[in-house]
Amino acid sequence: MLRILVINPNSNTEVTAAIDRAMAPLRTADAPTIDCITLSDGPPGIESQRSCDLAASLVSAHIAEASEEADAFVVACYSDPGVSASREVTTKPIFGAAESAMAMAASLGVRAGVISILDVAVARHWRHARSVMLAPFIVADLPIGLPVSELADEAQCRARMLEVGLRLKEAHEAEAIILGCAGMARYRAALEAELGVVVIDPTQAAAAMAISALRLGYRAA
Amino acid sequence: MLRILVINPNSNTEVTAAIDRAMAPLRTADAPTIDCITLSDGPPGIESQRSCDLAASLVSAHIAEASEEADAFVVACYSDPGVSASREVTTKPIFGAAESAMAMAASLGVRAGVISILDVAVARHWRHARSVMLAPFIVADLPIGLPVSELADEAQCRARMLEVGLRLKEAHEAEAIILGCAGMARYRAALEAELGVVVIDPTQAAAAMAISALRLGYRAA
Amino acid sequence: MLRILVINPNSNTEVTAAIDRAMAPLRTADAPTIDCITLSDGPPGIESQRSCDLAASLVSAHIAEASEEADAFVVACYSDPGVSASREVTTKPIFGAAESAMAMAASLGVRAGVISILDVAVARHWRHARSVMLAPFIVADLPIGLPVSELADEAQCRARMLEVGLRLKEAHEAEAIILGCAGMARYRAALEAELGVVVIDPTQAAAAMAISALRLGYRAA
Amino acid sequence: MLRILVINPNSNTEVTAAIDRAMAPLRTADAPTIDCITLSDGPPGIESQRSCDLAASLVSAHIAEASEEADAFVVACYSDPGVSASREVTTKPIFGAAESAMAMAASLGVRAGVISILDVAVARHWRHARSVMLAPFIVADLPIGLPVSELADEAQCRARMLEVGLRLKEAHEAEAIILGCAGMARYRAALEAELGVVVIDPTQAAAAMAISALRLGYRAA
Amino acid sequence: MLRILVINPNSNTEVTAAIDRAMAPLRTADAPTIDCITLSDGPPGIESQRSCDLAASLVSAHIAEASEEADAFVVACYSDPGVSASREVTTKPIFGAAESAMAMAASLGVRAGVISILDVAVARHWRHARSVMLAPFIVADLPIGLPVSELADEAQCRARMLEVGLRLKEAHEAEAIILGCAGMARYRAALEAELGVVVIDPTQAAAAMAISALRLGYRAA
Amino acid sequence: MLRILVINPNSNTEVTAAIDRAMAPLRTADAPTIDCITLSDGPPGIESQRSCDLAASLVSAHIAEASEEADAFVVACYSDPGVSASREVTTKPIFGAAESAMAMAASLGVRAGVISILDVAVARHWRHARSVMLAPFIVADLPIGLPVSELADEAQCRARMLEVGLRLKEAHEAEAIILGCAGMARYRAALEAELGVVVIDPTQAAAAMAISALRLGYRAA
Repeated sequence: MLRILVINPNSNTEVTAAIDRAMAPLRTADAPTIDCITLSDGPPGIESQRSCDLAASLVSAHIAEASEEADAFVVACYSDPGVSASREVTTKPIFGAAESAMAMAASLGVRAGVISILDVAVARHWRHARSVMLAPFIVADLPIGLPVSELADEAQCRARMLEVGLRLKEAHEAEAIILGCAGMARYRAALEAELGVVVIDPTQAAAAMAISALRLGYRAA
Repeated sequence: MLRILVINPNSNTEVTAAIDRAMAPLRTADAPTIDCITLSDGPPGIESQRSCDLAASLVSAHIAEASEEADAFVVACYSDPGVSASREVTTKPIFGAAESAMAMAASLGVRAGVISILDVAVARHWRHARSVMLAPFIVADLPIGLPVSELADEAQCRARMLEVGLRLKEAHEAEAIILGCAGMARYRAALEAELGVVVIDPTQAAAAMAISALRLGYRAA
Repeated sequence: MLRILVINPNSNTEVTAAIDRAMAPLRTADAPTIDCITLSDGPPGIESQRSCDLAASLVSAHIAEASEEADAFVVACYSDPGVSASREVTTKPIFGAAESAMAMAASLGVRAGVISILDVAVARHWRHARSVMLAPFIVADLPIGLPVSELADEAQCRARMLEVGLRLKEAHEAEAIILGCAGMARYRAALEAELGVVVIDPTQAAAAMAISALRLGYRAA
Repeated sequence: MLRILVINPNSNTEVTAAIDRAMAPLRTADAPTIDCITLSDGPPGIESQRSCDLAASLVSAHIAEASEEADAFVVACYSDPGVSASREVTTKPIFGAAESAMAMAASLGVRAGVISILDVAVARHWRHARSVMLAPFIVADLPIGLPVSELADEAQCRARMLEVGLRLKEAHEAEAIILGCAGMARYRAALEAELGVVVIDPTQAAAAMAISALRLGYRAA
Repeated sequence: MLRILVINPNSNTEVTAAIDRAMAPLRTADAPTIDCITLSDGPPGIESQRSCDLAASLVSAHIAEASEEADAFVVACYSDPGVSASREVTTKPIFGAAESAMAMAASLGVRAGVISILDVAVARHWRHARSVMLAPFIVADLPIGLPVSELADEAQCRARMLEVGLRLKEAHEAEAIILGCAGMARYRAALEAELGVVVIDPTQAAAAMAISALRLGYRAA
Repeated sequence: MLRILVINPNSNTEVTAAIDRAMAPLRTADAPTIDCITLSDGPPGIESQRSCDLAASLVSAHIAEASEEADAFVVACYSDPGVSASREVTTKPIFGAAESAMAMAASLGVRAGVISILDVAVARHWRHARSVMLAPFIVADLPIGLPVSELADEAQCRARMLEVGLRLKEAHEAEAIILGCAGMARYRAALEAELGVVVIDPTQAAAAMAISALRLGYRAA
């Protein structure tokens, strides 16, 4: 049985649980097993570049050690920490949430707007999108600007996400929306219903890419 | 039961049969049904831009008529004829072989070289890659230069593909190879073994993207 | 006597007549003859990508058959249907309205805004502009959003075009305007007077390029 | 009677005479008069950026003074000295040889290789091509590397141009050739015959653009 | 003792004096001497491309003659007149104010907004930024739109600069400000205090680059 | 007295000593003090992306703790580990060796070739160059391909660097060379003498930028 390991590089097990729930539609009869784990020594959340760099080391260290325990790996964070490094430690396919989400938009022929948590993430996302040559698929990246402490307030969070999503669609002509944080998975359905465009959850996108890669036998040199 | 319709826009049923065989790894227990059809009024092969334009009309006409008969559509030709038009006639997701193959390379974090049949295809491929903003993922597009009549000669064809693949890998630093024609599917395994890099069959890539889209419920506005 | 064939790929003879009138300034003493024809089996108008793909096939089929009847060909539609294909069927020069209009802006050293009919055309125009590498010359492409049935209402149409033209000039810093539809030729003078910038009718631009090419003896390999 | 003034910004009257002869195919019955003049205080040749900057001042000074004496102006040097400045001193259309040659390639749907005289010109040409956003249309710019004193040796010059032209076509996949110096006009026919691709003389291209602009009444704001 | 010659290419000695004062922080114990000179035959100000072209010739002529009198040269004008030409007449390092300011922004990892004097400068700045491949570091270039006669009115000028600076920061997300005119040096401190971002005076940036180059012994081939 | 802290993120004190020697020309009378330190818990060398990610965390952690101990920071590794993160933890200016080296090339108006140690570094360098938008300044990045164990063999190392440098200059038209590793500083003079082009040591470039920033009082918001 093939196995995909989805790594939440922050130490928040509630986020891992939400990611795990978002995997449901990909868990089909003879599909690869999808296991979601939390890096317990990861930062509580990946807000700064510094926490992202820390996560990068933890992710590739984990994959280097666990490379025999799975057939493909997904990094469940919209900054793709450790993805490049992991590709150097194993020939098994590695998928970053951001890279996969943008590639998914590309396969659908649409340009997307990104909804981010905090302003500080935006520049980091752009650096990454340019780095992986997918920046042309992003029309804008806008933060909801809520402090983490208020993310638990679901009504407020959803309202802000809808507001930003509408701005991406109307002022920036986004043809799709990318959730710029692995922890936003639970809002996907609501946003899709209200905005009327495809909303891409990046971890779902990456896990779907991983399944495809395993089905088709892709394996790096 | 969800259904994906893979449309071979040329009238060559042998090509359709080969595409159909290439779908095998994607036909899993509760996966969407994948049916491959031949456009019997399509050109015998899509070599020129003219045959590509003709195929484009046929593809979108077929999808417009058959839009209720499937849940997602794949256009099995590396020039993606009719993909843009089809996206205007249905909100169901449409996947082009070329666009999906390049997006797959993007998700794997690699730049690919394309192996084409004839020299005349190369400029067409570049126009398309620029059009869909994925040209940065292609390092070179080189033809094997065999007349169609000699494609049946499997030994010669495979030798030429290997030769071109090696050139893409060594002189152009391709990190993956894309088969630039839906009819090359049967050579994928051999090339992969001999070149030691991921070889992407574009129809497989597109069908895998379609499965992902259906699993995740993507649907255009 | 050299002859340029201007092909209106839609079946609307009123549009052909308007295009024909717009050729007046290019019909000089010993200039090539400019004949404008209607593709009677063309779509009534080219609004969708699907009608554009259909037109593409008809255009290149016509040029393939009529290649001996003219010395250069102009495709009078801002989506350039069939231009690439036609260049494969004859070595005589082929000019697309959009490509020529953007190249004309380039020769004048200006960046242009495009006035389109319908929203659906905008994405198509961008795909094409990227494909032919002239997208940097377009600052924005905005639709007037009138249903075809109301295009006959000249006062309303002109008012909408002026409004969009002003927006292109003021909000998007367009230094010139391109009429994004061959059927807008009659509004060129009025717009130019009111906006105070060069207004490029794409069919005029393409026919002028064709005359230049014939004078200078350009002929593809 | 409309008049186009073609300005050779170097003081070499033999070059002006050659440019004048190259205008022959554009001098038709009721076409605008094309007069070619030499800037007698111009540099003997425009090889360095310094001579180019000097020529720039002379060109725009001349056009500022002579703006009423012609209806359009052509700057007959592949570095387009003074073109931007001249556009600020008159609303009459100004055409640069390089900009027009590249725009002509764009209108023909081809990418061109440039044949230059000296190595020092190459970087200057690239700076200019990037500046006017037409660099994507140039596949390579290669010098023949002959000292000016040997340009008079027509056999040698032609042999070197053919050699460089072949390299542009074969190693760089040039679909057309641009003569990267106004003084190369006389070699156009021979190169075209031997290479089998369109060869664009930049002054011819610019004069043809000027005729088009006058016919169509383009005039800057 | 090493010497840097800063050339103000306009004939306004008050501007030279202001530039000279701006050099103060770079005049340290054993630093290269920085001498600022006025080109007395330069234009009174560089507003148009024509005055810029004239300045270009004067600058490179001066540097060609004075090449032994200094070890590095700075061109103190945000249009970098004569910089490319000067690099052809000496192997000593030449620094343009604009190129250096944009490179300084690059070294700081920020994208900048440019404050220009007049609207006519904006297109010239963009042509230059594209030419030297640093345009991606500029988010916008906005003029204060004051006639030169009113630049003496310091209060008004400063107010306008602050207004434009705020717009660059807030509407265009500039992370730094570049003063788009060598004559704006005296406003740097005030702007920096009020906007809270790095404000780059281009002549300071160029002189600092020159000092670095001399310290490190850079010298062109 | 202002102080610049140069951080060697690998634990090799010989490399730090070599970097320290390379600072000599920047240690002038009243210049900021330049202190070079070794991160003793850093990886022995930064060859892989994984060691780079690890170094990134160590660098920004060090700067976060030591932010009051210096006025500017230089990260002495051609992969710029921790530079982005460090900019989020202090408003003091942070300079990356790679970013500064490329910006220095930009200020000199040249395009550079990079000499790298190992093949694995090349892709990482390109990802970074694209990320910071300076990739257009790099013509090629070629490895010398020596295992670290052989770097001590100075004669061999220098011969390989010269060979790669020549290839960058002749086959890739590099106008300058960038040493793609902080440990190559000692070869700068020899390469410059033999190749006849500017050779940029990235740590020198970054320290020079830091001095400029301190002299001019740049400080992030």
